Amino acid sequence: MLEEIREQPEALERTLKAELRGAEKLRARFEKERPRFVVLAARGTSDNAAQFGRYLIEIVAGIPVSLAAQSVSTLYKVSLRMEGGLVAAVSQSGESTDTNVVLEEAKKHGAFTIGITNESSSTLARIADHAILVRAGKEKSVAATKTYTGQLMAFYLLAWALGADLDIDDLRRLPALAAAALKLEDEVAARAERYRFMDHAVVIGRGLNYANAFEWALKLMETSYIVAERFSQADILHGPIAMVDQSFPVFLLAPPGVTAPVMRELADKLDGLKAETLVLTDRSNNLAPKGALRIPASLAHKPKRGRAALPADLYTPIPYIIPAQMFAAKLAAVKGLNPDQPRGLSKVTRTL
Amino acid sequence: MLEEIREQPEALERTLKAELRGAEKLRARFEKERPRFVVLAARGTSDNAAQFGRYLIEIVAGIPVSLAAQSVSTLYKVSLRMEGGLVAAVSQSGESTDTNVVLEEAKKHGAFTIGITNESSSTLARIADHAILVRAGKEKSVAATKTYTGQLMAFYLLAWALGADLDIDDLRRLPALAAAALKLEDEVAARAERYRFMDHAVVIGRGLNYANAFEWALKLMETSYIVAERFSQADILHGPIAMVDQSFPVFLLAPPGVTAPVMRELADKLDGLKAETLVLTDRSNNLAPKGALRIPASLAHKPKRGRAALPADLYTPIPYIIPAQMFAAKLAAVKGLNPDQPRGLSKVTRTL
Repeated sequence: MLEEIREQPEALERTLKAELRGAEKLRARFEKERPRFVVLAARGTSDNAAQFGRYLIEIVAGIPVSLAAQSVSTLYKVSLRMEGGLVAAVSQSGESTDTNVVLEEAKKHGAFTIGITNESSSTLARIADHAILVRAGKEKSVAATKTYTGQLMAFYLLAWALGADLDIDDLRRLPALAAAALKLEDEVAARAERYRFMDHAVVIGRGLNYANAFEWALKLMETSYIVAERFSQADILHGPIAMVDQSFPVFLLAPPGVTAPVMRELADKLDGLKAETLVLTDRSNNLAPKGALRIPASLAHKPKRGRAALPADLYTPIPYIIPAQMFAAKLAAVKGLNPDQPRGLSKVTRTL
Repeated sequence: MLEEIREQPEALERTLKAELRGAEKLRARFEKERPRFVVLAARGTSDNAAQFGRYLIEIVAGIPVSLAAQSVSTLYKVSLRMEGGLVAAVSQSGESTDTNVVLEEAKKHGAFTIGITNESSSTLARIADHAILVRAGKEKSVAATKTYTGQLMAFYLLAWALGADLDIDDLRRLPALAAAALKLEDEVAARAERYRFMDHAVVIGRGLNYANAFEWALKLMETSYIVAERFSQADILHGPIAMVDQSFPVFLLAPPGVTAPVMRELADKLDGLKAETLVLTDRSNNLAPKGALRIPASLAHKPKRGRAALPADLYTPIPYIIPAQMFAAKLAAVKGLNPDQPRGLSKVTRTL
């Protein structure tokens, strides 16, 4: 798992380089006919990547996006009216039964379909109208890491193809940002020690980093068997905050930008409850509390002259998940568990 | 809380009776111009009701539905292209800042808007093009119960207005089904005792009862401070199942119909892991395991001749949440907590 975490900068570079041409073709296609809505279908880590894709596409391309309720197709056998829609399925293996069913159904009912997968010869790559290949190289660890960030990269390309005013040069800098996050490995290892006996936790994100809260929590569940909840900064205030008492462990993703003030407000509220908070941020967020784990780079996006005013946290999700992945791997080690072989899981899970 | 739980049959009857006329008008409107997609915006318990509405509308009306990512409007200030869409906001008080912002934004950008609220003179009721009033009577307990089932009733009316072939006579039977579920109160109280020292749990649902898994978990978090996760039957298999070991408490919603076989499969898998499962079902599910908590009524829906073949679990969500609400209230009592006054919460929460 740690090896695959460390491979991420080069994997990201490979994805971008190889998939840019295909994204250009997509962009030309969508210029002629822009999808009226987007539906994303996935499970597990890929579903968390889809959650990111959902925020990204809405925020930078302005098209309404929905995460598919897959049982509607697979169990209830209902066909939705999909004319004018774009449906994208995300699956590391490309062999998820349910997401493939959703994609085929959508195709039959008028949607243009995209498959985002790490396996070029998979069913998903074959049945989709267009495949975006993650090209992370074989992922051996059951806990997905490099395919997750590769899927995030695929979503940047998809959002750009959908008309977002992203600068490809900014995407080219993402591998370097991932490398900056990897520098935290020793600090993360030192911090993980303290959590040896943690058995539950809450992870909080918001906006573009909401998906990372799901992914951090999933990594804690898979590798360290933590009962890890995940909420948006707003949702935890609507009820779940009641369960937080003294010493309750809470992990917060606190990037620069529009979510920074509300995340700081929540961190202060949690301090008031004497919860045990760990805030992940970078050098550019002046609102992060003291003691935060800081990625040693300034990640706030500053748009160039003549470009759309895109949000400051636009390029934080890839570097921000990396310390979280390392934390889960290190914590598993501290707990004497093998993060590469979570109990009861296999690499490909088939559900309906 | 218990008093309000017991009021549900009469509250549901009141909602249906008073709102049917308005739903007829909506139905006539949508017959002329059917929405191309639906977006639902809410927080907390109302968001769980929206999750139900999402499955219901897709399954019985065939229109793609999305749960709004509210920060896109409130924090990132992005306007989505909403022409031809229907946007519904759900809020007990009608004073949720964020859902009201989403609704106003959507209205400005071409959507038809609906407000589902318990307060007729609220901001939400005033700004929406059409209001569906829950009419549950004043809800005093912080943990919402009767407004949740009232919101589910509102969604049946909305789905019908959107062209679903529901039989209003079936909706008229829902208060009686709720009354049947209330008969479990003593059995629920007896079962709650066993969970005195439970501090974490997982609740599992699927399809039309997926929302109830969120709501059951939320009630456990709010009233009994349980770290309660919630997953679909498929999603738990994609990673989180790793955290389930001997004695891990899992609650399953197992209605009759298309989800029954996969829920039974999961219950058997959990038994193999020696987890502590509590299965909620009714008399009509032959696939439920022995020892399940059974609502004393046959809830499987059987369509009348000449009507669309609607799913067997169509009318289970309202009666199924009631034993879960009672369980949370009884467990709080067993733990010596006051379910009406969860720590750190107030009745109206304002977030952005």
